Amino acid sequence: MRVAVYGGSGYTGGELLRLLSGHPEVGGVEVSSRQHAGKVVGDVYPQLAVRERFVEAGEIDASTLDVAFVAYPHGESAGTVAELLAAGTRLVVDLSADFRLKEVALYNEWYGEHPVPDLLEEAHYGLPEVFGAPEGRLVANPGCYPTAAVLALAPVVKRVKVSSVAINALSGVSGAGAKPTAKTHFVSANENVSPYGVADGTPRHRHTPEIEAVLRGVGEVPEVTFVPHLLPISRGELETIVVDLEDSGDLPEAKEVLRWYAEDYEGWVFVEAREEVPQISHVVGTNRARLSAAVDRRAGKLLLFAALDNLLKGASGAAVQNMNLALGYPEDTGLEYLK
Amino acid sequence: MRVAVYGGSGYTGGELLRLLSGHPEVGGVEVSSRQHAGKVVGDVYPQLAVRERFVEAGEIDASTLDVAFVAYPHGESAGTVAELLAAGTRLVVDLSADFRLKEVALYNEWYGEHPVPDLLEEAHYGLPEVFGAPEGRLVANPGCYPTAAVLALAPVVKRVKVSSVAINALSGVSGAGAKPTAKTHFVSANENVSPYGVADGTPRHRHTPEIEAVLRGVGEVPEVTFVPHLLPISRGELETIVVDLEDSGDLPEAKEVLRWYAEDYEGWVFVEAREEVPQISHVVGTNRARLSAAVDRRAGKLLLFAALDNLLKGASGAAVQNMNLALGYPEDTGLEYLK
Amino acid sequence: MRVAVYGGSGYTGGELLRLLSGHPEVGGVEVSSRQHAGKVVGDVYPQLAVRERFVEAGEIDASTLDVAFVAYPHGESAGTVAELLAAGTRLVVDLSADFRLKEVALYNEWYGEHPVPDLLEEAHYGLPEVFGAPEGRLVANPGCYPTAAVLALAPVVKRVKVSSVAINALSGVSGAGAKPTAKTHFVSANENVSPYGVADGTPRHRHTPEIEAVLRGVGEVPEVTFVPHLLPISRGELETIVVDLEDSGDLPEAKEVLRWYAEDYEGWVFVEAREEVPQISHVVGTNRARLSAAVDRRAGKLLLFAALDNLLKGASGAAVQNMNLALGYPEDTGLEYLK
Amino acid sequence: MRVAVYGGSGYTGGELLRLLSGHPEVGGVEVSSRQHAGKVVGDVYPQLAVRERFVEAGEIDASTLDVAFVAYPHGESAGTVAELLAAGTRLVVDLSADFRLKEVALYNEWYGEHPVPDLLEEAHYGLPEVFGAPEGRLVANPGCYPTAAVLALAPVVKRVKVSSVAINALSGVSGAGAKPTAKTHFVSANENVSPYGVADGTPRHRHTPEIEAVLRGVGEVPEVTFVPHLLPISRGELETIVVDLEDSGDLPEAKEVLRWYAEDYEGWVFVEAREEVPQISHVVGTNRARLSAAVDRRAGKLLLFAALDNLLKGASGAAVQNMNLALGYPEDTGLEYLK
Repeated sequence: MRVAVYGGSGYTGGELLRLLSGHPEVGGVEVSSRQHAGKVVGDVYPQLAVRERFVEAGEIDASTLDVAFVAYPHGESAGTVAELLAAGTRLVVDLSADFRLKEVALYNEWYGEHPVPDLLEEAHYGLPEVFGAPEGRLVANPGCYPTAAVLALAPVVKRVKVSSVAINALSGVSGAGAKPTAKTHFVSANENVSPYGVADGTPRHRHTPEIEAVLRGVGEVPEVTFVPHLLPISRGELETIVVDLEDSGDLPEAKEVLRWYAEDYEGWVFVEAREEVPQISHVVGTNRARLSAAVDRRAGKLLLFAALDNLLKGASGAAVQNMNLALGYPEDTGLEYLK
Repeated sequence: MRVAVYGGSGYTGGELLRLLSGHPEVGGVEVSSRQHAGKVVGDVYPQLAVRERFVEAGEIDASTLDVAFVAYPHGESAGTVAELLAAGTRLVVDLSADFRLKEVALYNEWYGEHPVPDLLEEAHYGLPEVFGAPEGRLVANPGCYPTAAVLALAPVVKRVKVSSVAINALSGVSGAGAKPTAKTHFVSANENVSPYGVADGTPRHRHTPEIEAVLRGVGEVPEVTFVPHLLPISRGELETIVVDLEDSGDLPEAKEVLRWYAEDYEGWVFVEAREEVPQISHVVGTNRARLSAAVDRRAGKLLLFAALDNLLKGASGAAVQNMNLALGYPEDTGLEYLK
Repeated sequence: MRVAVYGGSGYTGGELLRLLSGHPEVGGVEVSSRQHAGKVVGDVYPQLAVRERFVEAGEIDASTLDVAFVAYPHGESAGTVAELLAAGTRLVVDLSADFRLKEVALYNEWYGEHPVPDLLEEAHYGLPEVFGAPEGRLVANPGCYPTAAVLALAPVVKRVKVSSVAINALSGVSGAGAKPTAKTHFVSANENVSPYGVADGTPRHRHTPEIEAVLRGVGEVPEVTFVPHLLPISRGELETIVVDLEDSGDLPEAKEVLRWYAEDYEGWVFVEAREEVPQISHVVGTNRARLSAAVDRRAGKLLLFAALDNLLKGASGAAVQNMNLALGYPEDTGLEYLK
Repeated sequence: MRVAVYGGSGYTGGELLRLLSGHPEVGGVEVSSRQHAGKVVGDVYPQLAVRERFVEAGEIDASTLDVAFVAYPHGESAGTVAELLAAGTRLVVDLSADFRLKEVALYNEWYGEHPVPDLLEEAHYGLPEVFGAPEGRLVANPGCYPTAAVLALAPVVKRVKVSSVAINALSGVSGAGAKPTAKTHFVSANENVSPYGVADGTPRHRHTPEIEAVLRGVGEVPEVTFVPHLLPISRGELETIVVDLEDSGDLPEAKEVLRWYAEDYEGWVFVEAREEVPQISHVVGTNRARLSAAVDRRAGKLLLFAALDNLLKGASGAAVQNMNLALGYPEDTGLEYLK
């Protein structure tokens, strides 16, 4: 297969390159970067023994591409996706938020006006363990936080009526992007934890509507409270989710929730539920999401835990998994060592 | 004043030593340690330029002590406290959990049988910003997590009826103690976050009943859900607290909550509320607790944030502050540089 | 192939398991651990999706083993190695120091009396880029520090006369082993760097004689000064080596040294020299050693830099590479994703 | 005293503010910052409970200032220093490199043309433990690396003839400044170590000539090899120095070197030599430099170790110490808690 990565200078682009360059079904990878065009990939990413060069996006012939991954910022991605589809690229996996929300009004409220709203319906939300293998030519790769939240919550909201969901999310600094800022300076982030996504006394992170909208494809869900925190680790993500049930008599045993997970995720190799509460180190460097549950019967609350690597199952690993499934390969093709 | 620290080999003992050795009203500090008796303090703690030696607890003459700080593990502390009071020590500040709960049945349920239950009533819970300057000869120094939780919640539960409290707590590894374990090994804790205090599918951390019992001295409070997480930082603690109100129409503005804080904590130098969400780096190395609030009106929830240094305002700094207040000095005596 | 790992509870054992479980030529891996016998591997190492159980060493049938990796501590390893060879195991790769020194007197001086000195001569020092593919049935897998030092120095001492070598070595905490100690406690190691291997005013680390003895198989080498430092990272190692030449007129250009490296390591995929000074992040998670050189003409000194992942090229990755080469497979079989 | 800090937005400026705001002889501190003028200091540095505002440099009346600290970048500082001296400021402590080298040619070679070369002679190099209390109105505060190197080496080069000096230096990221760059991004610096100051195959860090020039005020010194490394810690610095003696027969015992240190630094409270090799955690958060020595008799080399906090003894702590001494106060005035 001929594959291209549009926007290879960020962390997700770099991780995609690493995964694709070892993928047995991928012949060659072209990678674009405005910032690095002309430079050898392995000089920019010394971790990657890749001697090819970054090119300008325009130098890639999209008409004969089997797969294009678009790793542009939100808003910038949609236009390129539309061009690629028009040019004849067989499959486009978009890693931005541009095709994750189906409702154009909702997108416009949280991200600004959508450039190609007509394409929204064509996109398949790429969380195969919940929504099956992608169909069609456009995959909206999920956000990292929604991946963890939806994997943990979908089996619950399918089965019981939930009246309150509060997600406490913790993420490594790679989640904040590769751009150097005051916040991502080592001395700022090190030995620190900072809640973010709160402005003017209101939590308002863009993954909130994604979590709500996606979960509502599965069951009834109230408005979700979502508070992310920046942690002094490079990669990895953990969500601790507190759930109230409509009818407190429905409060299950923790083991019952584990059975729901086992049932719903049977056969999917990258999602695993265990009695043991997951830690970030259990999943960093893998494409796995690990889940667990606990019940606080005193306070009448269900607790869900989900951990994943934000750059793998939360972004580039999932993107390759989606490609595999969309094209009929086993989901772990080229990802065997990330189980 | 003649002051002694019983149990100087842990992190809180070491931090107490550092604070007391620079305290203008403290003449000399004796410090006991079974493990290190006979060794020079500054050899065990190269950070401290202290050339005195650790002694055995029995070598300290308790009858003429002005202040004794007891930094023993829970259960071991109570006996020593009783002896010190009997011997005539003017003021005892206990840093263990042994005198934090007033109800002996509650203590027994969470910690095992209390050795000197008659003393429970004599103890003053040493959170002066909520309960005033300590009175009597025995101060129960609060737990680190309860300090943050009670400072954030007390002004709220005094004013509005609360129907649900879920505390997501994050702590540095010094909170897990100085004993080397698999969990505190650098390679285990580094690049990791692990929820803890969950056993057999149930959250059950001992600070839960302390938070509930102490808050109930201020207002009505439901059972609290408390989930602590171990973070890859040496010190510091952050709590993100999600509160539901009995009557959602009572949901205040974030600024109103800041006014409550300003009102209740006026004149107390070590508690500060700000619009800006607190970060752990704002308080590490200080004796300050920093608070903030946000309101998720979509989901109908009040969010409270509290950050402090678990070894200072969460333990040894608070202990010195309590000593100051109990003995009539300004609360920041010897702590001026920790503001 | 039937493969076993003796001593699977340490970091090198765990890493070996990870590598071997994805190796295309390895049928099944048995793994022994006194500490964990009977437990599921994936419960002890949640990072590994391995559902087999640890066994007692005695439960493994050594006579039909194709390859045994012995990851025991120094001194304990030699006896097991001797038994395995006697029992008929086709290839034994020893990860301890027990067979790295050829001279029994030198071994005895630094490690205590060798239990099976007659086997010393049979061992092949497993640094293939310098000493070729292993021959015979016993491979002495090199120490992590010597791997970096010998790769950097061998091409130099072959070509010029060296009068002084001072190695400043930096290592992550996994190099200190998985046993919880005061030194490996997160709070001790974090935000810290500590030189070690200095006792009574004398540097005396056991990798010093290994470096000297191995290099003397290549060229003339003076006594080496070696000072290791413990760093607050989980894995990775960097050596900055200062070399004086016998004749300062021989001082080469940095680029000439890079040419020596290119020449000597041509065709070996896991050693790479570049103009850019290597960083630990360039090699962590890979089986690569990265080298560079600089010349301080003002002071008349040659500087060499070498970086590797102490658990991969410095231990388990090299062990698998040695297995591959000893059994006639390409050196990167099963290690393709670590390039 | 009326004191001002010019350039308060960097790490050294912030640290100065913290130290000066608790200094008993300092009445008020004015602080300038182009970037932050008008903002409340405590909003920019939430760690500091300072409610005053940053001003423009021009708003400070220099004619009545007792002390001005100039924390501008190299090259920008000299002009302001000249103006302050002309305006009548009683004492100027310059934290840049602009007045550290006495020879204008040497300055010009390493930093570019000096704007006010005539002032070079007036400056006193502010390392009091070696050069005594500052005299005159201008103090050149030493570089962080030279402070450690000169403290470790001066007593040696005074007593024995040294033929080679190689300094391996390790520094926390605050040493690289507060400006966000690719190199100081958390994800770049974390779990990494990178040698720096090497360009085109040549080590060339500007502290090299400072170390040489300053030491030559004490004894004979050859050209020094200096290789700094960036470490994943926020603050702290460690140097491991390898010294060859002209006459190897002069190689002292490690204890003898400790005696030299004890002799030369007697009475200076912020320099301490011990048998134990110093670690960065021994000195972070203090104004202490800690020294030790070892001897590698096999290889004929003397090893010196020095550790300090780059923002305290390596910058702002030393600046306050210099102010104290220049104005006749005890050196630790206002710094008692940093011993």
